[in-house]
Amino acid sequence: MTIISDLDSLTNHIIDFEPIGRTGKCHDNESILACANRIGLGISSVCGERGTCHTCRIQILSGISSEPAPSEIEAFSPQELADGWRLACQVYPHGNCRLNIPAESMTTAQRLQVEGLEATVTPEPVIKAYHLRLSVPSLDDPQADADRFLETLNRKYGQHCTRIDIDVLRTISSRLRALNWECHATVRNEEVIAIGPWPSRQLGLAIDLGTTKIAGYLVDLSNGRTLASQGLINPQVSYGDDIISRISAVIKSPDSGATLKRLALEALNALAVSLCAGIGAKVEEIVDAVVVGNTAMHHLLLGLSVEQLALSPFTPVVRHALDIKAREAGLHIASGAFVHFLPNIAGFIGADHIGVLLATGISSMEGPVIALDIGTNTELSLVNNGKIMAVSCASGPAFEGGHIKHGMRATRGAIERFRIKNNEVQYQTVDEAPPVGICGSGIVDTIAQLYLARIVDERGRIKADHPRVRTDNNEREFVLVDKQKRHPTITITQRDVRELQLAKAAIRTGIQLLLEMNGFSEKHIEQVVIAGAFGSYIDISSAVTIGLLPSLPLHFFRQVGNAAGMGAKMALVSLAKRKEAQDIASRTHYVELTSAPNFKQTFIETNRIGRYRINHGRKEELD
Amino acid sequence: MTIISDLDSLTNHIIDFEPIGRTGKCHDNESILACANRIGLGISSVCGERGTCHTCRIQILSGISSEPAPSEIEAFSPQELADGWRLACQVYPHGNCRLNIPAESMTTAQRLQVEGLEATVTPEPVIKAYHLRLSVPSLDDPQADADRFLETLNRKYGQHCTRIDIDVLRTISSRLRALNWECHATVRNEEVIAIGPWPSRQLGLAIDLGTTKIAGYLVDLSNGRTLASQGLINPQVSYGDDIISRISAVIKSPDSGATLKRLALEALNALAVSLCAGIGAKVEEIVDAVVVGNTAMHHLLLGLSVEQLALSPFTPVVRHALDIKAREAGLHIASGAFVHFLPNIAGFIGADHIGVLLATGISSMEGPVIALDIGTNTELSLVNNGKIMAVSCASGPAFEGGHIKHGMRATRGAIERFRIKNNEVQYQTVDEAPPVGICGSGIVDTIAQLYLARIVDERGRIKADHPRVRTDNNEREFVLVDKQKRHPTITITQRDVRELQLAKAAIRTGIQLLLEMNGFSEKHIEQVVIAGAFGSYIDISSAVTIGLLPSLPLHFFRQVGNAAGMGAKMALVSLAKRKEAQDIASRTHYVELTSAPNFKQTFIETNRIGRYRINHGRKEELD
Repeated sequence: MTIISDLDSLTNHIIDFEPIGRTGKCHDNESILACANRIGLGISSVCGERGTCHTCRIQILSGISSEPAPSEIEAFSPQELADGWRLACQVYPHGNCRLNIPAESMTTAQRLQVEGLEATVTPEPVIKAYHLRLSVPSLDDPQADADRFLETLNRKYGQHCTRIDIDVLRTISSRLRALNWECHATVRNEEVIAIGPWPSRQLGLAIDLGTTKIAGYLVDLSNGRTLASQGLINPQVSYGDDIISRISAVIKSPDSGATLKRLALEALNALAVSLCAGIGAKVEEIVDAVVVGNTAMHHLLLGLSVEQLALSPFTPVVRHALDIKAREAGLHIASGAFVHFLPNIAGFIGADHIGVLLATGISSMEGPVIALDIGTNTELSLVNNGKIMAVSCASGPAFEGGHIKHGMRATRGAIERFRIKNNEVQYQTVDEAPPVGICGSGIVDTIAQLYLARIVDERGRIKADHPRVRTDNNEREFVLVDKQKRHPTITITQRDVRELQLAKAAIRTGIQLLLEMNGFSEKHIEQVVIAGAFGSYIDISSAVTIGLLPSLPLHFFRQVGNAAGMGAKMALVSLAKRKEAQDIASRTHYVELTSAPNFKQTFIETNRIGRYRINHGRKEELD
Repeated sequence: MTIISDLDSLTNHIIDFEPIGRTGKCHDNESILACANRIGLGISSVCGERGTCHTCRIQILSGISSEPAPSEIEAFSPQELADGWRLACQVYPHGNCRLNIPAESMTTAQRLQVEGLEATVTPEPVIKAYHLRLSVPSLDDPQADADRFLETLNRKYGQHCTRIDIDVLRTISSRLRALNWECHATVRNEEVIAIGPWPSRQLGLAIDLGTTKIAGYLVDLSNGRTLASQGLINPQVSYGDDIISRISAVIKSPDSGATLKRLALEALNALAVSLCAGIGAKVEEIVDAVVVGNTAMHHLLLGLSVEQLALSPFTPVVRHALDIKAREAGLHIASGAFVHFLPNIAGFIGADHIGVLLATGISSMEGPVIALDIGTNTELSLVNNGKIMAVSCASGPAFEGGHIKHGMRATRGAIERFRIKNNEVQYQTVDEAPPVGICGSGIVDTIAQLYLARIVDERGRIKADHPRVRTDNNEREFVLVDKQKRHPTITITQRDVRELQLAKAAIRTGIQLLLEMNGFSEKHIEQVVIAGAFGSYIDISSAVTIGLLPSLPLHFFRQVGNAAGMGAKMALVSLAKRKEAQDIASRTHYVELTSAPNFKQTFIETNRIGRYRINHGRKEELD
């Protein structure tokens, strides 16, 4: 029996389902579709797994699998097969596999937070729009079309322009004639960047390009109103969940840099098309764009070197804001438009954090105020009296569900809330679907509840003496959900708890050291602003309970959603906000956390679960 | 016998050899190579016409010919055959054909004038170069590479820059590290456009893009010295000899516009490579460029619409000067460099004429001074007291050897000088080679000599009573050169004389009307500046004799060679000259010649051969 069980485990392959981020085990004689369904991931299939409906298309990114079945050879071109495209109902893994499940093959969609603060900004766009009616050329007045255009603009509106974008110039003669010499001119600084029929909309695109998620907003530049918003998974996740694995991919093979750039651009261009389709607009009507993202995303998108980001002293290529022609950036909007990239702060704190500081308005607060955006990499800054100090914490993928046995991103079926009441477990899943795994906010809740129930102690050890604690593969784990027909067993293991302790210690250390470097302790904090998707869904009291966040009254915390995207939107509609962003960047001083003298000591102290404060290096117990 | 002769003429195909511009007749059973050799065009062949050496490669641009022989199928790829590539020794025409004889298949090369005035301009380049040594980033000083670069530039040289070209930014981090943080920075306005090793040259490229010929100059921007110069045939000639036929090609098929653009760019890029190879430089060392050309060439190169140029009121897309990134223009020099296009004047007077006015310095003369650049289209301007009036004359292709029975461009074997002395003919050919045909300056000489010898009268009629006058195909012609073993018969026909009369009347009418519109007569002219290749080789006294040029003492004429190219070089090395060019453009008033009230009358009067002046509409005989 033991032998058979061992054999059995040998043919148990680990399947990594991307971009959802869920892993599962699969037998040699179990199809990918069957495996996905068993662990609760919804892959489309309507033909009863006969390989005829072609709705379960997936892509094998790496790993060995069965040879293509005749139905698969029929379903895909040779190139698609070479690229790893398969039918999930026909393919059997012969080893560990990493898969890409495209959105259209899923019955569920990932929850992507695009909502954030809706701050009101007085539109003061970089773009100006004019209605022009030109005189028609004649033998007596044979002026060049472009010169006639610029002269009319100057005479009628006092708008002096020195340049017409070369792509606009390439079509100006035919367009003016087609429009019967009446048109809409879009001007940026002293350059004509677009010509269209009169009247036409002036649309702007704001993008928050995250490591995992991309959020896009289509904005009416004339009034600053958001016309459409949408999120999607960054397709670069197939090259690694975190920044470091993507940079490593580039270091290993320079071609990967081009591929990562292309993937991001394709996603942004698809997003622009989709946002426009939603309001019946064309992408050519987008005449301005602002992009925020962390420094690595910024660099990969622009085709800048990322190698040096991964090596001490982690130098970014560029920190100041950039204005790049859309076509040079590869963005398919009005060809003459510019894309504005907000400034970066450092190699691991990017323009997205500038976006947060901009959107929340805290950069102008007296302080001390803490702003943090929790993710695989957590950006953290302390605002005090006009000065900003920023650090970056390597918090790891635990809050995105990574390195957690049943961890997953916040998609349908992810446990996002967890309570123990009267020794009974209660949980809530995304979309109230049957539980499939557990996402970041669920993990934080679970550890907090286990700690409060004294099932996990302050050192993070799971105690054996609870009916829901069991041992599997020599490891203790707490069973959140028992296996049922519609879903698998979901547990939190001892290793999961350790993983979370490291993640939360990294962040809490950052907060602590930032305070110390500025001569403060936690009691001085006036506000903690929490940005980002994870930060919005997190239960603050759970986060305080486990010691992820400082022990402050709940009203000290402000969850602001996708503030980075909101910052991008503000900069999109307001020139003043772009200047403010540059001002914030120049006021922000980056500090390398790991070189602080107290780093190691603080990291050890903050590893503890529970509520506490650290004042001048001494921990005050609060429980 | 008559019938046979007719049949014979039916199988006599007209072969148009491009880019030389020579035509010849060919029998069905005569190879292209044999035909070319018979009319004196040197096409390479070393295998005795057995199709094995492949040196006689030619391209059939249009027309029907024999099916490819086995040796041709061996010599070319299917794509090449589809594109019309053949071996001249194996292909027999079955109808009129238009051929492209590439330079490498010719034993002779066309004379391309690249020399011009060598005016001395104080270099005041648009480009500045700096030697930078940067501090190396560390954990204590983790500044972004680009910010460190700009800050050093500002601190060390007071050179404030706001931008780094995106392509430079894409490589700045790896380059700075490879160069060990010491480099050469090239700055244009407030933008860093190139980074290279220290020291490195700052090269500039000046281009005169003519309808027929392209001249290129490689210039050291630090001292204004010309390091290399080279000419080549504009490959667009395969789409027509003159501007109008190329525009027609675009109107017929919009794809032709893209093809014409590509052909010109390929030629410019090849020219840059060749110029650089000559001095052991790389094209990436070229950090600035200036292009002049007529308006159609300018528009085609930039991908602007040309359709409207051919339709009244002949409106150019743009008149003002343009600065376009080299990569946007398609020019393979330093990627971040700009190409400066001097301003145009009108649809048929381009930046090349601005170049002439700039290089000759006449735009600042008191005047009245006439400047003309003779070609298929002749640009003509009158400078008077700070004002410039310009007209365009449709002089046609006669001066390039077009529409002339034995006409050809000024390549090896072209008769370029002709005299009748003591009733004996004397001639001089290009390279003193056996005569092949007659080029523009030879035609002017011949007509002048025939007029002085009273073989042609003032109305242009060839008289019958001369031993060298014969009748061929019912047309009188004067035999310049008798057929010999090494060369064919070369004649000037009655139709050739008419062709020349129309051409010279067009130009003389332009001069006359320009004077009249400004209240002058020819006797007021202080100087006539003649630019361009044809204008340099022309015998001024012959040109005056036939009435092409006004009857003024010879010292009133100044032949300045390729002044357009020289103007491009001046603008390349001097910002002041670019400003002056823009100033010249704004002071130049274009007049549509054909709408002048006296146009028709003057055109008829100036059709006459001989020396004369026209004052206030009255012709003064001077003979």
